[in-house]
Amino acid sequence: MSAINKTHDVNLKSWVASANVSGTDFPIQNLPFAIFRKANSNQEFRGGVAIGDQVLDLDAVVASGVLTGLALEAATAANAPALNEFMGMGKAYWSALRLALSDALAEGSAHQSALESALIAQADVEYALPCHIGDYTDFYTSIYHATAVGSLFRPDNPLLPNYKWVPIGYHGRASSIGVSGQAFPRPKGQTKAPDADVPSFGPAKRMDYELEVGIYLGKGNELGDAININDAEDHVFGFCLFNDWSARDLQAWEYQPLGPFLAKNFASTVSPWIVTTEALAPYRTQWHRDENDPQPLEYLESSHNREAGAIDIQMDVLLETEKMRNEGMEASKLSESSFKHSYWTVAQMVTHHTVNGCNFVPGDMLGSGTQSGPEHEEAGSMLELSRGGKESIKLNNGEERKFLEDGDKVIMRGWCEADGFNRIGFGRVEGTVLPAK
Amino acid sequence: MSAINKTHDVNLKSWVASANVSGTDFPIQNLPFAIFRKANSNQEFRGGVAIGDQVLDLDAVVASGVLTGLALEAATAANAPALNEFMGMGKAYWSALRLALSDALAEGSAHQSALESALIAQADVEYALPCHIGDYTDFYTSIYHATAVGSLFRPDNPLLPNYKWVPIGYHGRASSIGVSGQAFPRPKGQTKAPDADVPSFGPAKRMDYELEVGIYLGKGNELGDAININDAEDHVFGFCLFNDWSARDLQAWEYQPLGPFLAKNFASTVSPWIVTTEALAPYRTQWHRDENDPQPLEYLESSHNREAGAIDIQMDVLLETEKMRNEGMEASKLSESSFKHSYWTVAQMVTHHTVNGCNFVPGDMLGSGTQSGPEHEEAGSMLELSRGGKESIKLNNGEERKFLEDGDKVIMRGWCEADGFNRIGFGRVEGTVLPAK
Repeated sequence: MSAINKTHDVNLKSWVASANVSGTDFPIQNLPFAIFRKANSNQEFRGGVAIGDQVLDLDAVVASGVLTGLALEAATAANAPALNEFMGMGKAYWSALRLALSDALAEGSAHQSALESALIAQADVEYALPCHIGDYTDFYTSIYHATAVGSLFRPDNPLLPNYKWVPIGYHGRASSIGVSGQAFPRPKGQTKAPDADVPSFGPAKRMDYELEVGIYLGKGNELGDAININDAEDHVFGFCLFNDWSARDLQAWEYQPLGPFLAKNFASTVSPWIVTTEALAPYRTQWHRDENDPQPLEYLESSHNREAGAIDIQMDVLLETEKMRNEGMEASKLSESSFKHSYWTVAQMVTHHTVNGCNFVPGDMLGSGTQSGPEHEEAGSMLELSRGGKESIKLNNGEERKFLEDGDKVIMRGWCEADGFNRIGFGRVEGTVLPAK
Repeated sequence: MSAINKTHDVNLKSWVASANVSGTDFPIQNLPFAIFRKANSNQEFRGGVAIGDQVLDLDAVVASGVLTGLALEAATAANAPALNEFMGMGKAYWSALRLALSDALAEGSAHQSALESALIAQADVEYALPCHIGDYTDFYTSIYHATAVGSLFRPDNPLLPNYKWVPIGYHGRASSIGVSGQAFPRPKGQTKAPDADVPSFGPAKRMDYELEVGIYLGKGNELGDAININDAEDHVFGFCLFNDWSARDLQAWEYQPLGPFLAKNFASTVSPWIVTTEALAPYRTQWHRDENDPQPLEYLESSHNREAGAIDIQMDVLLETEKMRNEGMEASKLSESSFKHSYWTVAQMVTHHTVNGCNFVPGDMLGSGTQSGPEHEEAGSMLELSRGGKESIKLNNGEERKFLEDGDKVIMRGWCEADGFNRIGFGRVEGTVLPAK
């Protein structure tokens, strides 16, 4: 686990003025990583760190000579078109770089003049995927989502008997994961109306998003070696926001008996910035299991996990319709939830995934599953908000939706707050549904 | 689709004598690709082509100067630690290299003396995965397997209503795919006995194999662009044998509602050689759908697919127990089947997978799903052969099995035969279950 240290100090200010503005996602206490380049350029994509409204260019940082030791090795590895090598170096390197960057960006640092030219405005850059994602697994850790969706797909049997014992997950498609800004045609496929004798083919009619946390693996494990729950968090490099787009009508017809497939693999979108596990140390909360529920099997149990296994990542979802865009209106908020409601923790996901010997590789990603909260208004998908398409969701400009329409842009935001600490944010993940081809 | 040409001529002989021996897997009409190096050496892994009992080293072939044009470009790309670049070049390059190698290895070739030193005995090499597998999808195309397994997991509802309409598939784990020779500890995990109140944790008791064909994608497609069924086979570089190891007791407890996960992702094993789509041209057969069954939706229908969509890849499975190994006995044959029984063709799998816009990347792999034939003796898994563990499978040395025991080695072989053409083979895929850690 990551301890709280001087990099989290609420009194720390940066010589980058925009990092000290109240409400910024990227104060000096955050320091998330992305892969970026100047927008519309032929520059090589490379690693960068967010500070206020700027990106600190790790290529320029390495060249500046301000880093030494493990921090320099780490920054050199991160100065690449993908962060995998850096992510695979492990916690000692991640922490050394965080500490060195925190010192170098702090008010009064002797390195200010050397690093001022290493800043590029976020408004002037474009992002790539932060790493090569070898394998992507999606979990299903919100019991509120599982119950709500289960009751729509299987009215007689909403929550299956394994749910409270097994951190349910399944493998997803890595090739179609894109970075925020992804736009994709509405998928086509087979659907079958409940009253139809045979299926038909055409564009999906029940297009949806799923509000998820994305979890990036850092250090991997050898095939055959399980990761103990007490070591699990040391394998987690960091977190992002994740939109697991879903075509509900394709899903309903295809998903039995082997799970969702074409309903999901046409696109999935991540936010550009990876907020590190260490940056999230102040926002950990207790994880508890209701005493009426079964307690986890021993391999999923640890005292640290009970004390601080959950993370209070607050998230919201906004919808910007084409009409709103054309009329310059604000996007309409659809719901708000938190990852703290998750029935299983990150450590439990990591340990469960490897308990059979399955191997992780640096850059692998886990989706948390849709993070719906306990209240209906906290649902992380339109399927839930519209109660399976039975009720209209009212938008702030008078428009209504049951599912997504062509031109709709979905925006997710995330942030953390805790007494005695700064607010830090995840930025946003945006994606747009285009008309079917 | 690949046409029959002079490289398939049954009268063609090679100056490599072992390629002309009756029954060899690798006559000059085959020419499959692998990644290899001298066994127990520090050599770089690189591309090679099987001919008789030899490997033709593409590094030496490129250096020899016997290739020109597209064939030289193709061989240069294949002279690498993974075949992805070559696989992504497309059919014109694959065919040019096949033709050039066929000419150069043919009896009477002027290049014999230049290429003799490019041969290494297969007995002296070791193999790596033939390419980086970005994403792996497993299909479920044997209706005999789906019905038999369905009746064990869901006695009331063995074949679900979507089966005859949708080529059912799901995403698998790429990181744990290994090449023939893979040995892995028996996976541990949660299981729940039907009469137990709560699940328990421990080594899987119902370890099984699945006899599958592996299908390697060559040229990919852009996200958002579907591959038409008439173009689908042009995206398929070639085929291997594939063992999709399965822990049935883990599977039964975890698989609902999102599909198999830890029951499968601890290991999967491929044969080293990729037999190209072009090499398989003579063994294509008609694909037909029983007139009492629903006919495919239009996007899965083509006249070529009806005429020659199926491939008669014959396969068998053998089991070598520790006792057989210690006593120097032959492995015991468990069953034999053919890919021609598949309910869906390769073209239908490729087209269905992309019809929603999902993108393939060169080197992606599809599993066919367990290729059980219509007869009980043709079952491609022990779950079927032992009727869910109810009957013992008798081995040729008097031992019995219901599922795999520690030390058991599973061997799969594959080959094709057709009137007027040579027999060609796939070699073997072998893998061993070690005791749980």
